[in-house]
Amino acid sequence: MNDAFARTPQPPYYAVIFASQRNGEDDAGYAQAADHMVELASQQPGFLGVESTRGADGFGITVSYWESEEAIAAWRQHAEHAATRAYGRAHWYQHYELRVAKVERAYGKPANSKQTST
Amino acid sequence: MNDAFARTPQPPYYAVIFASQRNGEDDAGYAQAADHMVELASQQPGFLGVESTRGADGFGITVSYWESEEAIAAWRQHAEHAATRAYGRAHWYQHYELRVAKVERAYGKPANSKQTST
Repeated sequence: MNDAFARTPQPPYYAVIFASQRNGEDDAGYAQAADHMVELASQQPGFLGVESTRGADGFGITVSYWESEEAIAAWRQHAEHAATRAYGRAHWYQHYELRVAKVERAYGKPANSKQTST
Repeated sequence: MNDAFARTPQPPYYAVIFASQRNGEDDAGYAQAADHMVELASQQPGFLGVESTRGADGFGITVSYWESEEAIAAWRQHAEHAATRAYGRAHWYQHYELRVAKVERAYGKPANSKQTST
């Protein structure tokens, strides 16, 4: 098991795909806020999980998973999230792209699993 | 402009979200194959773009974007892709999760854009 993976239910559910290029400023403030936003998101109704990574070049992808469009809309309107989002857009990102998508199919291979037998 | 971002059209279109934990083996072989797969994918009908990153912990997210489910199915069946995928599942990943999703909404902020005027 690896905590970097979201343990989502069977589809359908929703994904918010957030790709961003950090501008290299305020690493400490950004890291603290990012951690806090994940913690806060995980307490919201309809939150299913999150997967996030960022390379040494500052390009990152965060995918959060939600039960419904309504859950995404409620999180979007959450006051502290909205304030942090507005601050982040002005101070932390050179560029970002956000996409909302409906997950229709999913499969994977956990660590140490085997799909063949001998 | 930043080449790490996919320049996708207006939704709807499809996203293949691939989250993976590298096992730390064969970095050179993996990097070469990953680059080649992106190059090959970009030549397929219906390919719209790809965004990919991996952190120092070996956890990565790659999102490829496609015009249709049919384009995803054709790429899935591409012989060289299928062979590399099978090899990779056996040799490069400790764990992976793949999700296919329909992008319904999208927006972003490119570098140097302003949404307010003075």
